[in-house]
Amino acid sequence: MKTTSSSSAVGVWLIGAYGDIATTLMVGTHAITQSLASTNGLITSVAPFTELPLVELSQLRFGGCDIRDTRLVLSAEEVYRRSRTYSREILDAVCPALEHAQSDIATRTDFTWNPQQASSADTGPTLAERVDGMRQLLREFKTRHRLSHVVVVNLASAEPLAQPHASTHSLTGLEQLIQSNAKQHLSPSDCQAYAALAEGCPYLNFTPSRGGELGGLQELALRNRIPFGGNDGKTGETLVKTALAPMFAYRHLQVLSWEGVNLLGNNDGATLSHPENRTAKIANKGNVLHKILGYPVHSGVTINYVPSLGDWKTAWDLIHFSGFLDAPMTMQFTWQGCDSILAAPLVLDMIRLADFALRRGEAGPMRHLACFFKNPIGVEEHSFYRQFQMLLAYAQHHLGKRNTVTE
Amino acid sequence: MKTTSSSSAVGVWLIGAYGDIATTLMVGTHAITQSLASTNGLITSVAPFTELPLVELSQLRFGGCDIRDTRLVLSAEEVYRRSRTYSREILDAVCPALEHAQSDIATRTDFTWNPQQASSADTGPTLAERVDGMRQLLREFKTRHRLSHVVVVNLASAEPLAQPHASTHSLTGLEQLIQSNAKQHLSPSDCQAYAALAEGCPYLNFTPSRGGELGGLQELALRNRIPFGGNDGKTGETLVKTALAPMFAYRHLQVLSWEGVNLLGNNDGATLSHPENRTAKIANKGNVLHKILGYPVHSGVTINYVPSLGDWKTAWDLIHFSGFLDAPMTMQFTWQGCDSILAAPLVLDMIRLADFALRRGEAGPMRHLACFFKNPIGVEEHSFYRQFQMLLAYAQHHLGKRNTVTE
Amino acid sequence: MKTTSSSSAVGVWLIGAYGDIATTLMVGTHAITQSLASTNGLITSVAPFTELPLVELSQLRFGGCDIRDTRLVLSAEEVYRRSRTYSREILDAVCPALEHAQSDIATRTDFTWNPQQASSADTGPTLAERVDGMRQLLREFKTRHRLSHVVVVNLASAEPLAQPHASTHSLTGLEQLIQSNAKQHLSPSDCQAYAALAEGCPYLNFTPSRGGELGGLQELALRNRIPFGGNDGKTGETLVKTALAPMFAYRHLQVLSWEGVNLLGNNDGATLSHPENRTAKIANKGNVLHKILGYPVHSGVTINYVPSLGDWKTAWDLIHFSGFLDAPMTMQFTWQGCDSILAAPLVLDMIRLADFALRRGEAGPMRHLACFFKNPIGVEEHSFYRQFQMLLAYAQHHLGKRNTVTE
Amino acid sequence: MKTTSSSSAVGVWLIGAYGDIATTLMVGTHAITQSLASTNGLITSVAPFTELPLVELSQLRFGGCDIRDTRLVLSAEEVYRRSRTYSREILDAVCPALEHAQSDIATRTDFTWNPQQASSADTGPTLAERVDGMRQLLREFKTRHRLSHVVVVNLASAEPLAQPHASTHSLTGLEQLIQSNAKQHLSPSDCQAYAALAEGCPYLNFTPSRGGELGGLQELALRNRIPFGGNDGKTGETLVKTALAPMFAYRHLQVLSWEGVNLLGNNDGATLSHPENRTAKIANKGNVLHKILGYPVHSGVTINYVPSLGDWKTAWDLIHFSGFLDAPMTMQFTWQGCDSILAAPLVLDMIRLADFALRRGEAGPMRHLACFFKNPIGVEEHSFYRQFQMLLAYAQHHLGKRNTVTE
Repeated sequence: MKTTSSSSAVGVWLIGAYGDIATTLMVGTHAITQSLASTNGLITSVAPFTELPLVELSQLRFGGCDIRDTRLVLSAEEVYRRSRTYSREILDAVCPALEHAQSDIATRTDFTWNPQQASSADTGPTLAERVDGMRQLLREFKTRHRLSHVVVVNLASAEPLAQPHASTHSLTGLEQLIQSNAKQHLSPSDCQAYAALAEGCPYLNFTPSRGGELGGLQELALRNRIPFGGNDGKTGETLVKTALAPMFAYRHLQVLSWEGVNLLGNNDGATLSHPENRTAKIANKGNVLHKILGYPVHSGVTINYVPSLGDWKTAWDLIHFSGFLDAPMTMQFTWQGCDSILAAPLVLDMIRLADFALRRGEAGPMRHLACFFKNPIGVEEHSFYRQFQMLLAYAQHHLGKRNTVTE
Repeated sequence: MKTTSSSSAVGVWLIGAYGDIATTLMVGTHAITQSLASTNGLITSVAPFTELPLVELSQLRFGGCDIRDTRLVLSAEEVYRRSRTYSREILDAVCPALEHAQSDIATRTDFTWNPQQASSADTGPTLAERVDGMRQLLREFKTRHRLSHVVVVNLASAEPLAQPHASTHSLTGLEQLIQSNAKQHLSPSDCQAYAALAEGCPYLNFTPSRGGELGGLQELALRNRIPFGGNDGKTGETLVKTALAPMFAYRHLQVLSWEGVNLLGNNDGATLSHPENRTAKIANKGNVLHKILGYPVHSGVTINYVPSLGDWKTAWDLIHFSGFLDAPMTMQFTWQGCDSILAAPLVLDMIRLADFALRRGEAGPMRHLACFFKNPIGVEEHSFYRQFQMLLAYAQHHLGKRNTVTE
Repeated sequence: MKTTSSSSAVGVWLIGAYGDIATTLMVGTHAITQSLASTNGLITSVAPFTELPLVELSQLRFGGCDIRDTRLVLSAEEVYRRSRTYSREILDAVCPALEHAQSDIATRTDFTWNPQQASSADTGPTLAERVDGMRQLLREFKTRHRLSHVVVVNLASAEPLAQPHASTHSLTGLEQLIQSNAKQHLSPSDCQAYAALAEGCPYLNFTPSRGGELGGLQELALRNRIPFGGNDGKTGETLVKTALAPMFAYRHLQVLSWEGVNLLGNNDGATLSHPENRTAKIANKGNVLHKILGYPVHSGVTINYVPSLGDWKTAWDLIHFSGFLDAPMTMQFTWQGCDSILAAPLVLDMIRLADFALRRGEAGPMRHLACFFKNPIGVEEHSFYRQFQMLLAYAQHHLGKRNTVTE
Repeated sequence: MKTTSSSSAVGVWLIGAYGDIATTLMVGTHAITQSLASTNGLITSVAPFTELPLVELSQLRFGGCDIRDTRLVLSAEEVYRRSRTYSREILDAVCPALEHAQSDIATRTDFTWNPQQASSADTGPTLAERVDGMRQLLREFKTRHRLSHVVVVNLASAEPLAQPHASTHSLTGLEQLIQSNAKQHLSPSDCQAYAALAEGCPYLNFTPSRGGELGGLQELALRNRIPFGGNDGKTGETLVKTALAPMFAYRHLQVLSWEGVNLLGNNDGATLSHPENRTAKIANKGNVLHKILGYPVHSGVTINYVPSLGDWKTAWDLIHFSGFLDAPMTMQFTWQGCDSILAAPLVLDMIRLADFALRRGEAGPMRHLACFFKNPIGVEEHSFYRQFQMLLAYAQHHLGKRNTVTE
């Protein structure tokens, strides 16, 4: 009954292609298609999502860019050495596939925020040149491999917040800011989203950066009939937070404080160790409790860089709450997960779902992807369970419609 | 808009009236009605349940029985000294109310399993005498205070499992077993449930004992149009388990092992330190994971008696799970809660909802109370969130009906 | 065999007398002397220290100062309400004794750093006036109660570091700085120590402030034959750190990272939530690992203010270490202690030992008190066990000498 | 200055040679000598032990026996697959060395307790035949490789306790029991120790079995001038326990309960999941607290088999203690270590120290090895720090003597 909609390949254009998540995503995709790993972690590999005609993993074609100048096999080797999340055997088996994709990875420093050149942000190519450069790469990637379409995913480091500007609310204003090279008002992720949507590519922003949020971009997405999604992948501590907080709400246990500590040692951790880069992430992490519980909660979020942990993030949360007779009690949890292992399958799930939405003609923010994000664009619901019900409802809607129409 | 349905008092007949939960429940009820404590922990004190015409806490009239021969003020003093869950000030303030209820508490050793007389279980009054004795006490309690009706709650210690017998499946068979004094096939909680339902009293079984599960009792409940609920209050570790396990299922994170350790030092802990008494409880605790995750999981449940902890239960769970690329990860949590503080408001919530159901003419197992139990009678759903949606749906159903009819 | 050296009372002059530690110390002393509490936590209540002729708790006479204007019974009531570390019964029993001491507590804002007047630090009385004011209070306290001597203890909030100045290295230079009112170079705790030592009073600095460290003060202590001790009481997380770190060293398990998080909600926590106030404390906490392990370790120390926790400090430490075959492993611990409950007996122990040292004619830094401090003046050893051996050796030395000489 | 005493190789005869610890020990030794791994975890690789003329790792020659019939490279592959404690690269590099040792590994079911043949313990070879068989293997091993001597190490599974018999207290009695084939009174480890000591080989018992404890064996060791050591390697939870408990004692913090939970999934865990096999281990683990604290403590020790954890043992301990004013507080820790990674270097350290002791002419229980054992033979001291001081004192004694005599 299940058929894939198209025989041609779907492109995946990864911004931050040498990073841990992108590397793990590519290694994992090839390991699965070579039957060397299970599909654990992939939501779209279980019912009811398996009933949807999603693109097969084997049909994905990877390309992208990174500010570093290295090779995919070297970044895969580095992840292996540092985090041991896959075995030497798997690494060896997928190396040919990584080599095959190498020519589609460009080294570009003008598409993302560059921690090393932070002070010279206003130098280099103009915004218009950057947007045009990325659009050209996307077109070439699509043409070179005769891709039916390309999904663009932002996996780059968190960037500092740009200064707000009223012109960003409309597409016309946004394009004027690009033309006037207003770098203080448009961050790299804004330009990425513009370039992707302008080229007809769904754009997924897995980072805490702004990409996709601006009114002008939403206008562009609707005009071009392109779906997009973001922001900030919900992979570990915040996932647990949004799964547990409803329990306290439903039991009328008053949360007095919810203190979270995140220790991590990957590039993400290094970037976030600078206060200006973590502003957005901490806001996303803290915000969810107020919305789930319905009252403001003292909720600190600490992010500390601990290099020896590599990609293995350890989060510890203390929940101090008050029950019957106002008796104070506590719960604490320690989450020891590997960021890229947790993130990569979510990105794959969303690539498949974005491709599906595009083929169905859906446009604008994909609200049904809320369960994947700390700060889902256009969605106020933060309870992980309610968010997942939204995704289930979406799948059931499409299964129902397909059943009615096709059969 | 909200009106209480009846001006007369509702009786609450507590089996195990001198235990920690019953004591805390009575202290808390009076502390709330005297404005000395918040309603934290009480689900029925927040929307949408506040819209239902539930009995007010000030209208509850407490009575009951216990195998011990003491006084309510002494058990309240003992809980205060041992667990410090409420202050001296609150204790002093509620003592008059406890004294007032004292004459409604009977010392009876024939209604519950008696750890001290375990070997002489087959001596003493016959089952028929026990049932009659309890029915008489319920009638007297109701008459003495002109109660509109009485809700019976089992808060006694866990009892050993009785040997199954086919006759228990029907009311006729059950009554024959009572008449033939078949103590090996009917546990004390079976008799409690029979006596309560026979007297027209809703029966709530908060313990891991069987009370309420037998087919014969369900037949009686339907015949007499009485609602009932059980088994085994979901207060701490299992609550967290059933709130967290769906997260692993939804994210397709394969749970390899889920190991739980419960340390507790109250009477419940002392009773459960005997293997024969904890069989039912451990089964209830372990069962939920299989049902939520959809596959069998290695899941040990350890219950250790640690006297110094008193009523402060400490539970530690280790969850070992496998994600993308089959990478193993772990989560652990420590729950430090006070059993009676967590249990008492649930019991109060259920008393109010059972009274409401009785007045609405509902009969049989109250499936909408599933979120309160480890092993909800008649319900296969164990996800805490889905269970809570069932309760919400029940409330909304009644609110909708009321809105339609009344306004 | 054991005899107390003197029948007259010993004065204890507490700077920060209304704070949680001072309050708990006084409540506890009276509870013990009234046989309402055990001597748990008091090292000097067990062998071999019980063999030393230390002053009895019942002979201590409390006085002191605080920047707040309240009463001891009110601060004791506040600690009771906020932290529940002692019962209503104990509070009621010790209130008369607290009232009795009330007239010896002065409200003074010029002896300690005042968080509220941080910006106007250079206004108010001159340093010389402050020193003279405190000396006068100490003399009056001693005379009023015919005290054999007075031990001064700094329990005030942590103060910002003063700018270093070469003149502080000598007593002459220090006194010149006082006369020239060089407030930027002398912190309040420097002046406290000067005043105490000038009046012949042992000075104990339980805070992370500098008090007692300056060369000029050490010169004064030796000239006047006065013992003193500090800095920064080792009560919780650092205690555990210095007890565990030697294990890793002895087993040649390479510590890769040791990350510590401290959550606390008392006044101390509020003060330390300002970065400038926690500089010294974080340095003290981080420093110990390098010294015990013998190599530099990545070791973050986070201190977060969580008001709801009150005096109940929760610390979580993650230790990431490497063993045989360079396999990475982890240990984590959670410490849930009450700061004032942990600190108060250490202060009492040191008061007794300082009084003893003074009577024995010992002067200068009491190196044998190293086990009580995060940053023991004049001691490089940070292993808690080795530090405790130093204290044991001190006791045995005195027991030996006494035995030899006296009997 | 440091010279090795002997140019000829030292034999290491491992009972349980295909087990995780033995495998890891051999892999690690070769990885270190090939400079593929650091010496982390090896106490004898750091000062002052590096000053002692201990046998070099490269001079060790491995042999032994196991009840299984497999090959060292296969067990090394299995450990790699199951526990990932070393990399594929290391495994590949050491395989030739493992193959080289293969011919010295015998498959023998009569030297150790065999979980599979538990009920037929009284069948098979007689005790005398078993002892003779092992002695012959030891002689052949020694001769084959011209070994200066051989150290025997018991790394087999825990065995059930044998029934005590007075004859075991003397060597004559012990030998009579062997001759009379009294299998109910002599466990396999007793016979191993006898065979080793009779052949002039130091015997190290790393298991909770009895080996080495019997009076008759101690008599034999003294007569033959052979050192020996045991019982039950202190690798993880008990190590932390004996490092932390002195802190509570020194601070006079009264331990109310110390509850420990051990989860493990290796063969050791499977064996210990049978109650009769874990009796000795639990006794060893529980015993230490009473001895360190000086008073009996409620201290449960739970050992649960969790297969998915493999060799990665996770231990969680809750310490409930009482401080000043009898305020209850808690500490908890989670230890996530790999048993074989923790154990292997201790075994290597002891092999080197046993060989050294033999060459120095020392005989009987090596009390200075107490820090390596849960239940050190002949030592009542359980504080890890005091035990380590004993080892340091031993080293310093030998360094001093050597310096004095030789140079």
